[in-house]
Amino acid sequence: MGERVEIRLAGSGGQGVILAGVILAEAAGVYEGREVAQTQSYGPEARGGASRAEVVISDGEIDYPRAMQPDILLCLSQRACDAYVFDVKPGGMVVVDSGLVQHLPTTRAVALPFTEIARREVGEGMMANIVALAALVTLTGVVSLRSLEAAVAARIPPGHREAARKALEAGAAAAREYLNRREAPRPTA
Amino acid sequence: MGERVEIRLAGSGGQGVILAGVILAEAAGVYEGREVAQTQSYGPEARGGASRAEVVISDGEIDYPRAMQPDILLCLSQRACDAYVFDVKPGGMVVVDSGLVQHLPTTRAVALPFTEIARREVGEGMMANIVALAALVTLTGVVSLRSLEAAVAARIPPGHREAARKALEAGAAAAREYLNRREAPRPTA
Repeated sequence: MGERVEIRLAGSGGQGVILAGVILAEAAGVYEGREVAQTQSYGPEARGGASRAEVVISDGEIDYPRAMQPDILLCLSQRACDAYVFDVKPGGMVVVDSGLVQHLPTTRAVALPFTEIARREVGEGMMANIVALAALVTLTGVVSLRSLEAAVAARIPPGHREAARKALEAGAAAAREYLNRREAPRPTA
Repeated sequence: MGERVEIRLAGSGGQGVILAGVILAEAAGVYEGREVAQTQSYGPEARGGASRAEVVISDGEIDYPRAMQPDILLCLSQRACDAYVFDVKPGGMVVVDSGLVQHLPTTRAVALPFTEIARREVGEGMMANIVALAALVTLTGVVSLRSLEAAVAARIPPGHREAARKALEAGAAAAREYLNRREAPRPTA
């Protein structure tokens, strides 16, 4: 990826969006030695239960730490998708939880059922944020899956690490399956 | 406090500086309905184990989310104190862990033994970040102690909430004691 990559993670309070932002930032900053700024903003939407975290990763010094025109947008709620999808950079990637975002304003979005995967494969719907992070990283290569694993292990309390490991695996597998499906040659008529 | 208040929290990795930043931001943003930006930056110092979180609280929209000239600086390590104490706004407040910061470059700093208090009063040195936050809030009034309590309860895992409650109490008590001591009339000769 280029010089400066902007990532916005958005959803509702309680979905672990802020923690996901901190983990992604630490994967890049602590485990890959890159310059990173990670921001959450609380305004009127926070009182309404919306949650948003931003990560800016760069190979040089970061002047402005906010994601003004995200290269990558993750939406874990319909409201987040409606609010932010048009901020995304042309050619940028939109990733959504297909169980929570019913109306997709763009056909370019990658829709995967993160919360359902977390419930089914991990047994903890609360791990949807980690499933989504693993998928996002697998789809974009913005950090390595290994750096993400290290950052998750450092941030998740010991009692939840095995679940988090499963969540990382399941998210990465779902993304790889999506990529394979997309790259498979179409059957000729 | 005025229109825009900048707070920087700094220490070493593992002291809970980032979590403290998120909690303080949520106390102001979610529980007091103010505009808040919360940022962590990872650069070369993060690889060296340093940790820094910033919170900007405003009554109006926040244009630049970083703390350029903090009104309030909390240092949980000597290195953080050495690096940041001269960034503080004239008239700003410096709060340090007196057990970890031996050399104080300013006589204006408030030095309280947060880690020792956490060990002694809470039985968990890891709660020094919460002790320090409660003291900082009691000293500055930047948010109410009640908002801080609500934000702590929402962010700390259920098994640690009782310890966190004790940490909040102990930190606030240490700060009140400091204020009383300072305000007490000096004995006349």
